[in-house]
Amino acid sequence: MAEAAPKFPEVQGGGSLIIAWQIRDKHVLVVGGGEVAAGRILHCLNADAKVTVVSPAARLNPEVAYRVTQNQVTHVDRNFEPADLDGADMVLVAVDDPAASTTIWKLCKERRIPANIADVPPECDFYFGSVHRDGPLQIMVSTNGKGPRLASIIRKFIAKCLPSNAGHAIETVGQLRVRLRQMAPRPEEGPKRMAWMTKVSDAYPWDEMCGLSEEDMANLLRFYPSGKVPSLDELKAMRANPEVSKNVFDGSFGFSVGA
Amino acid sequence: MAEAAPKFPEVQGGGSLIIAWQIRDKHVLVVGGGEVAAGRILHCLNADAKVTVVSPAARLNPEVAYRVTQNQVTHVDRNFEPADLDGADMVLVAVDDPAASTTIWKLCKERRIPANIADVPPECDFYFGSVHRDGPLQIMVSTNGKGPRLASIIRKFIAKCLPSNAGHAIETVGQLRVRLRQMAPRPEEGPKRMAWMTKVSDAYPWDEMCGLSEEDMANLLRFYPSGKVPSLDELKAMRANPEVSKNVFDGSFGFSVGA
Repeated sequence: MAEAAPKFPEVQGGGSLIIAWQIRDKHVLVVGGGEVAAGRILHCLNADAKVTVVSPAARLNPEVAYRVTQNQVTHVDRNFEPADLDGADMVLVAVDDPAASTTIWKLCKERRIPANIADVPPECDFYFGSVHRDGPLQIMVSTNGKGPRLASIIRKFIAKCLPSNAGHAIETVGQLRVRLRQMAPRPEEGPKRMAWMTKVSDAYPWDEMCGLSEEDMANLLRFYPSGKVPSLDELKAMRANPEVSKNVFDGSFGFSVGA
Repeated sequence: MAEAAPKFPEVQGGGSLIIAWQIRDKHVLVVGGGEVAAGRILHCLNADAKVTVVSPAARLNPEVAYRVTQNQVTHVDRNFEPADLDGADMVLVAVDDPAASTTIWKLCKERRIPANIADVPPECDFYFGSVHRDGPLQIMVSTNGKGPRLASIIRKFIAKCLPSNAGHAIETVGQLRVRLRQMAPRPEEGPKRMAWMTKVSDAYPWDEMCGLSEEDMANLLRFYPSGKVPSLDELKAMRANPEVSKNVFDGSFGFSVGA
């Protein structure tokens, strides 16, 4: 008799390990100041890194030059020297000089510094993809090198599919969690807090949460002591409508969710 | 008079640097064998890493135990010892022991090994997100810690938006590029090859490319010498229809694209 197939996900090789690298206040060295460097610098600044660009000033593209004048990056006006690697937590190279690139890559590997040499896949600890950003939401599309153009097209396709202001829904949930902890700070309430947050997540379609206001959140939090969660329609009906609020709390307003 | 605002993208801090880490044939050490470890092990195997799991056998969850029996991972049947870090390119810790976790984190930092200690954000070089996978296509959703549940919900939402078999479109483009290089291998044809590939990308909506077959690709490649690209309808009309093919090539079939 054949054995039953195991219920665990099958391994699907050939991918990358896609991760959200934490570079807040870390030192990123960018060698080169052209268009590719400009894109990478923006990625790093969006993640709050301290960026140093090593490149002769004459070769900076307008975007990189602008970021230098705005003090968004530190500029070293010359070609790369090995001492530039001192203190670097990550190195990104984007220069049209394969020999120099390979030299920098080898130095990075000796020092165990994660590095990416643009356009030289074997000299990359990691690749970049196309990233959609909306507040705390980041969505990265990788085609694992099969079609960088397609990655960007698919990213735009996804951006169109998402409800507008999707990042706001995430902010809302994040703020709700913070306020709830302020309202019910005792550690022993942890399980009750968590159960209620789960109930909220299950009660409202996430895309509908994009439209919740400060007032809605304040109204929603009033339900926490009872452990209940109003339906989205009930919550909306409470907007600037104390009568409904009163009815909700004296029980004369029906709960359709979490009651 | 006010200066004109610069046309460069504004920095939007607070994000992560989302990257596709290359761990094919690299050594990943996973400390712990519970549910969290199981998820991370799968991520690593999907990226072709060599995974070693350090955990007493009695504490392996069924999925991890299954991967051990299938020789998908190497198992070390005991608690962590510092020598386990020898040769590790990345370390993932998922054990319910904050003191032990912190010790491992510090050892990793001394040795400059990228590491992630589950549930301890300050002891993480990187975070994981929710990943959609379809062949060469990987889409990672991160809420930057604001809502892990939402990350998973948004990933499922995106998966539903995407045309079925979206990964196939990417494979198609990748294969087309490889075959084109076989057909026209001379380096001096590089610009012509690249221009034609761009024309193809621009001519067909990417989601329509999901439906292209081997036969369609072979037909499409026949247009390369002329530098032309047929419309998608023309390409479909050529399926097992030599008459149309003939007309296309003698010019009696109108080109709507790239002519």
